[in-house]
Amino acid sequence: MRIIPLGGLGDVGRNMAVVDFDGRLLVIDCGVLFPEESQPGVDLILPDFDYLKDRLDDIAAIVLTHGHEDHIGAVPYLLRLKPDIPLVGSQLTLAFVEAKLKEHRITPHTLAVKEGDTESFGPFDCEFVAVNHSIPDALAVYVSTEAGSLLHTGDFKMDQLPLDGRITDLRAFARLGEKGVDLFMTDSTNAEVPGFTTSEREIGPVIDGIFGRATQKIVVASFSSHVHRVQQVLDAAAKHDRRVAFVGRSMVRNMKIAQEMGYLNVPPNVLIDAKRIGDLPDDRVVLMCTGSQGEHMAALGRIANRDHQISVGEGDVVILASSLIPGNENAVFRVVNSLMALGAEVVHQGNARVHVSGHASAGELLYCYNIIRPKNVMPIHGEVRHLIANGKVAESSGVPSENVVLAHDGSVVDLRDGVAKVVGEIPNGYVYVDGSSVGEVSETDLKDRRILSDEGFISVFAVVNSETGMLIAGPEIHARGVAEDDAVFEKVKPEIVKALEKAVAEHTGRKDTYQLQQVMRRVVGRHVSRLRRRPMIIPVVVEA
Amino acid sequence: MRIIPLGGLGDVGRNMAVVDFDGRLLVIDCGVLFPEESQPGVDLILPDFDYLKDRLDDIAAIVLTHGHEDHIGAVPYLLRLKPDIPLVGSQLTLAFVEAKLKEHRITPHTLAVKEGDTESFGPFDCEFVAVNHSIPDALAVYVSTEAGSLLHTGDFKMDQLPLDGRITDLRAFARLGEKGVDLFMTDSTNAEVPGFTTSEREIGPVIDGIFGRATQKIVVASFSSHVHRVQQVLDAAAKHDRRVAFVGRSMVRNMKIAQEMGYLNVPPNVLIDAKRIGDLPDDRVVLMCTGSQGEHMAALGRIANRDHQISVGEGDVVILASSLIPGNENAVFRVVNSLMALGAEVVHQGNARVHVSGHASAGELLYCYNIIRPKNVMPIHGEVRHLIANGKVAESSGVPSENVVLAHDGSVVDLRDGVAKVVGEIPNGYVYVDGSSVGEVSETDLKDRRILSDEGFISVFAVVNSETGMLIAGPEIHARGVAEDDAVFEKVKPEIVKALEKAVAEHTGRKDTYQLQQVMRRVVGRHVSRLRRRPMIIPVVVEA
Repeated sequence: MRIIPLGGLGDVGRNMAVVDFDGRLLVIDCGVLFPEESQPGVDLILPDFDYLKDRLDDIAAIVLTHGHEDHIGAVPYLLRLKPDIPLVGSQLTLAFVEAKLKEHRITPHTLAVKEGDTESFGPFDCEFVAVNHSIPDALAVYVSTEAGSLLHTGDFKMDQLPLDGRITDLRAFARLGEKGVDLFMTDSTNAEVPGFTTSEREIGPVIDGIFGRATQKIVVASFSSHVHRVQQVLDAAAKHDRRVAFVGRSMVRNMKIAQEMGYLNVPPNVLIDAKRIGDLPDDRVVLMCTGSQGEHMAALGRIANRDHQISVGEGDVVILASSLIPGNENAVFRVVNSLMALGAEVVHQGNARVHVSGHASAGELLYCYNIIRPKNVMPIHGEVRHLIANGKVAESSGVPSENVVLAHDGSVVDLRDGVAKVVGEIPNGYVYVDGSSVGEVSETDLKDRRILSDEGFISVFAVVNSETGMLIAGPEIHARGVAEDDAVFEKVKPEIVKALEKAVAEHTGRKDTYQLQQVMRRVVGRHVSRLRRRPMIIPVVVEA
Repeated sequence: MRIIPLGGLGDVGRNMAVVDFDGRLLVIDCGVLFPEESQPGVDLILPDFDYLKDRLDDIAAIVLTHGHEDHIGAVPYLLRLKPDIPLVGSQLTLAFVEAKLKEHRITPHTLAVKEGDTESFGPFDCEFVAVNHSIPDALAVYVSTEAGSLLHTGDFKMDQLPLDGRITDLRAFARLGEKGVDLFMTDSTNAEVPGFTTSEREIGPVIDGIFGRATQKIVVASFSSHVHRVQQVLDAAAKHDRRVAFVGRSMVRNMKIAQEMGYLNVPPNVLIDAKRIGDLPDDRVVLMCTGSQGEHMAALGRIANRDHQISVGEGDVVILASSLIPGNENAVFRVVNSLMALGAEVVHQGNARVHVSGHASAGELLYCYNIIRPKNVMPIHGEVRHLIANGKVAESSGVPSENVVLAHDGSVVDLRDGVAKVVGEIPNGYVYVDGSSVGEVSETDLKDRRILSDEGFISVFAVVNSETGMLIAGPEIHARGVAEDDAVFEKVKPEIVKALEKAVAEHTGRKDTYQLQQVMRRVVGRHVSRLRRRPMIIPVVVEA
């Protein structure tokens, strides 16, 4: 049995693993990664499907552990290659992925499963186990073949008093451990955090307290998939006689799904359409919106910029009931500062317990290792530091260090005679989605964009006689994003003319436009480097 | 008496205030702000000196509270306008600013002061008060004129057991409070943090513990101005029989200054030149370097990228003994992950107490308010959220809310009959330093850079007959940073030709190159917008 992580080992995102046995493949999760500032203009980053492209017919199924973007977001791009690969997941997970596929005009073949179910896909016998996470209906999956078994947790934590009563099923983990888990693949996101993740339940009283003292409008921002967080807001609103409007496309869509499927229990007469909040006094209103990561196009960002029909001001309370994803600090605090400058009070993770993590801390991972007693462990879902920390937790529970597999995206891990080992690796790169293009933005394009971003560009055009090579018109110089005014470039024109003339004189009879372009590039390059700049220089010579 | 904050109210950085009385000006601090990702290519951001430009002769002095970049970094740019404005500060502060001015080839007029000193600059009677901060020799300044008095803390905290024994002088604060403080301008950076900032002294045992168990090389990264942090590293090295090499230009330079002036006590035989560490076994070596914020060109970043003569590997320990400045998370953790992937153990703020803040928390601010009992308070040094939090702390100590002045950069604050009020504002913008240019990068340039960064550009070049307007050569299309390959643009060329011909036919006899350029822009724009792209389009028509 061969396991190849195609994403999620080295980054928080684009989680995906392939199990390869007896000529068939089982895919576990297929998510996206969100770009950093060093990847400008990129919308999404996908796993590299190259390993699958020639073997699409071998894929027995795609198992989805839960409905977060970093686990389901790349499904449409994989199904574009072959739309009839079966999608397997819990009811809510499938509902979220189907809504997404609808936008891509794909109707998938799905199989809904729930905890306790067993299903076989080709040579893969799967059993599904309930796990608790920051979205309802998450599943771990136990996969066994003739060559061995693995348990993949997906993302999970072990809230012992979850709002929906659906705990991570340690009895099942114990039973599977007795049966034998050759390879335990487990969520590393919080492995560096000692102790235990606080229960979602502890947020309720904090939100309740804020609602109790608020005298005007309340705005709550969170992730649009965090059904339990929204549930607590609805409950607090009902208690304090306020009505809640969902704001933001994904919030409206997801909560509709969650409500219809019974994951969100809406108290009577609490929901109201956002268009109708003007009919109510401010102290009866709660706006439940997107934008908790400071996204300037999402609802909260637009409210902060006064670019939304909903306004906030003196006396209003805004609650960011969400994590602050590393890297988003500047964006989030820009929104916080803008809201505070408008007079609103802003409650966030930094000044009140309005968020708990969705991932198991080191203490919880220890419970898992001790209950399951896996033969081999492969930390998944995290940056290098998280994977290493998780490996250390495993070792502290007694897993021999040689049985801790520290792999990365593209590692080829073989499970043979009960021992898991990295035996090689396949090429694995980021696949960038930019607008309608998938995989067309290259690392070179990104490097170009970074240069353009830091230094701008200068284009130089000249027209030469196709017979003689002599300059007919130009040079024209256009600069954008360069920190010099146009007068600076006027001065370089005579230098270019002289250099072109010299080059033509030296190569009588030849009309090498490439060479003339390089001459122009050198003159401009020399000129700007004296100003300590290195913009992109685009010299164009046209013959006429 | 008029006070105008020119920076530091709304951002963490470019701290600067001007006191204006009786036709003379006193400048307090003159620092830089470091750019965010939304300001690509910018090296530094300066305060806007416009208010001073016509009144340079009125400036009685520039008082510098301490030697951090965000308080002294813009001094060279102000002294360029008039090099003989007196610089007033403590011995170490002046040494740091003089080293910086030397690079700009400016020899300043300086006046060294120490705690307890009083000096008059024009109508401004100043008294200097010792404060404790994350750099030695920091001062607060009390300024009194016939019209009233202010106390400006600079950056400070109230470590009660500082390493150098130099505490924030609350006895002086008390005495000045008795005398009367009409306006208290105080550091807001940590006003949101409840309680008290931990003593620098508590870091020593943690570092000592790490040194005690390390069996190979130790690398410590911190700020190059953090003399006390470096002191603790030197002490731990001496105790554990290791030798320390300073790595990184600013670290070497600053520690030389600090050592020569007696702020850094180097134990005998501890220092070694970085070039000589190869002579020692790994377990005798400590490298004290820059790069704690993930800067890829600084020492630690280059070590992590294996682009430095110093290498780290399995068994080495790297300590990030510094804060993680918000916004730098991605860069810092990229370095952490790289170091861990090389096999090093990485100790940082997130997993051990190897850093404490340099700023007073809310509990300390309360002490100040209660001891000083100021008539008016103006929170300085912080984002809006910090300023508001500081104002709330002041109010909780009994300062009436109408005496809390929430100002921003460029606010004009008048102190009249014991009451401070915002009475107006002056234009105040960011002044960008980019390479050798100061103030030439505009917001438009940054917008251009952001577009180029996200979308790239397409330039379209055509040569037309100057008589007839008919196309002679081209169109040539060049695209960079656009996520489409060149074939896409080949398809648009015939469309451009057709559109140009049509335009010329419609305007017989006219040869309006601007118009023809707009025709080309529209054709290309329509083409790329179908691909959901909005690159910058640069159409150029040249007549020949």
